[in-house]
Amino acid sequence: MSLLVVGSVAIDNVETPSDRRDELLGGSATHFSYAASFFTPVRLVGVVGEDFPHEHIDFLSERGVDTAGLHRVADGKTFRWTGRYLPNMNDRETLDVQLNVFGEFDPVLPTSYRDSKYVFLANGVPAVQAKVLEQSEQRQLVVADTMDLWITQHRDDLDRLMQKLDGLVLNDSEAKLLTGEQNLVAAGEAVLEMGPRFAIVKKGEHGAIYFGREEGGGIEIQILPAYPTRHVIDPTGAGDSFAGGFMGCLAEAGRVDGATIKSAMAYGTVVASFNVEGFGLERMSTIGRDTIDERLREYKQMMAF
Amino acid sequence: MSLLVVGSVAIDNVETPSDRRDELLGGSATHFSYAASFFTPVRLVGVVGEDFPHEHIDFLSERGVDTAGLHRVADGKTFRWTGRYLPNMNDRETLDVQLNVFGEFDPVLPTSYRDSKYVFLANGVPAVQAKVLEQSEQRQLVVADTMDLWITQHRDDLDRLMQKLDGLVLNDSEAKLLTGEQNLVAAGEAVLEMGPRFAIVKKGEHGAIYFGREEGGGIEIQILPAYPTRHVIDPTGAGDSFAGGFMGCLAEAGRVDGATIKSAMAYGTVVASFNVEGFGLERMSTIGRDTIDERLREYKQMMAF
Repeated sequence: MSLLVVGSVAIDNVETPSDRRDELLGGSATHFSYAASFFTPVRLVGVVGEDFPHEHIDFLSERGVDTAGLHRVADGKTFRWTGRYLPNMNDRETLDVQLNVFGEFDPVLPTSYRDSKYVFLANGVPAVQAKVLEQSEQRQLVVADTMDLWITQHRDDLDRLMQKLDGLVLNDSEAKLLTGEQNLVAAGEAVLEMGPRFAIVKKGEHGAIYFGREEGGGIEIQILPAYPTRHVIDPTGAGDSFAGGFMGCLAEAGRVDGATIKSAMAYGTVVASFNVEGFGLERMSTIGRDTIDERLREYKQMMAF
Repeated sequence: MSLLVVGSVAIDNVETPSDRRDELLGGSATHFSYAASFFTPVRLVGVVGEDFPHEHIDFLSERGVDTAGLHRVADGKTFRWTGRYLPNMNDRETLDVQLNVFGEFDPVLPTSYRDSKYVFLANGVPAVQAKVLEQSEQRQLVVADTMDLWITQHRDDLDRLMQKLDGLVLNDSEAKLLTGEQNLVAAGEAVLEMGPRFAIVKKGEHGAIYFGREEGGGIEIQILPAYPTRHVIDPTGAGDSFAGGFMGCLAEAGRVDGATIKSAMAYGTVVASFNVEGFGLERMSTIGRDTIDERLREYKQMMAF
């Protein structure tokens, strides 16, 4: 099933306690696309500036990411993010953000993308996320990511968007902020009352929880720990690569039944574990589907009892 | 297999954002014993004061906890702890601690306990924990819990104790403190170089990770998320009830092979999920082995993919 992603494409500078990399290919849509590409071809919609290196586009194309929807603004500059991870490698400080062309991102889907069936709206302004839906009339599954800024500053738009979503992906603190619930299970369940029929709460190094409305009115929960990664080099993009693995897996299967969702959650977890093992997409560029499948088997074994 | 636990027996006052209970039966050995009692008879060694209600002893005895080793000090007062949970129900402040008779706890095993095979040293001064080992010469499996205070203030005693342990149970921040490793997987593995052949790192609401030395020199890892509990009433004793379920399960099986350990980890997780659903042991007193088994099946299903 065709998979479309809309979101940021960025150039990142990342500092960790022991190392630093500048001019990394980054952005939510980038990490998502790359992760999903191990499962299915991906259509990317984003915007970059004149300064965006052609080699980054080649790097994505080589993995089957369609970049026809990556708009380049002449005289514009690419979205840039600079961040520093604290010694625990989970908390980070944003040192600098330059939205540049992403600040006026007005996504336009190429004609060749308009029949997309599975759509992922990576973290962005809810009103902009909504514009994508108007242009993808053949959509069958829409999942969005969001963040604290939109929850507090663009709540009405987010509420409207949620009515049109099949699934919402967000992290634990965002789920609590969105719902006002302190208990994570209560928060996940409360998201389902806001529109989406499923919600995925990401807990970073602690894994993720899936909440799904069942036909009979019940709520199905899947809980997955993160893969225990010994060498966390750069957590940037872990959540997006999780979502990419998840959606890529669903698109590959072409269905969204319970068993497929559970398998997709596990694949998303495993793909994200590779993403953090290198700066930017460095580690991801060294793996293949076989590497992912091998770790998935190991991961499954680690939970068996 | 006979299961012995040595540790604190306390009277707790617990305050949460929405409620408060005074004069609760608490303590590490108490929560451990009660949890383990669903799997096997338990021998408890502890100390209380003259003020300790007889009904608490009856409460434990009724669940098959042998209290012959619960020493009552005439003219002494029981260990008392008062704490307050923050709205997230994970972080807490200790408002008052009165060690009382527990401050001079010098465990003496009744003759009837001396043939104990499985021994759990609940959180306590390492030198005191070590005294128990001298008195249980038929021990086959020794597991201990520890905490930051002993890691920083009684490190030599703890190092000596670790040489005699089969397993060490500690929480994530303690594992990092003990080993100096910031990465939890690296920390868990580093514990295995300090003596114990297995280590269990508890992550509170995020579950637990098991690290075990394999015969070939490799390290086996089991990762388990916590059971998603919607109504967390009082987390006090969750870690001890986890350990109780774990050790109880091993003692019931009478063996410590890989499959039994994995199953015991899952049982520990599930038992702990009941512990937090009520103040003190309120919720635990309403369940049976069938309730535990039913939730274990549900829990397993929640992780399946």
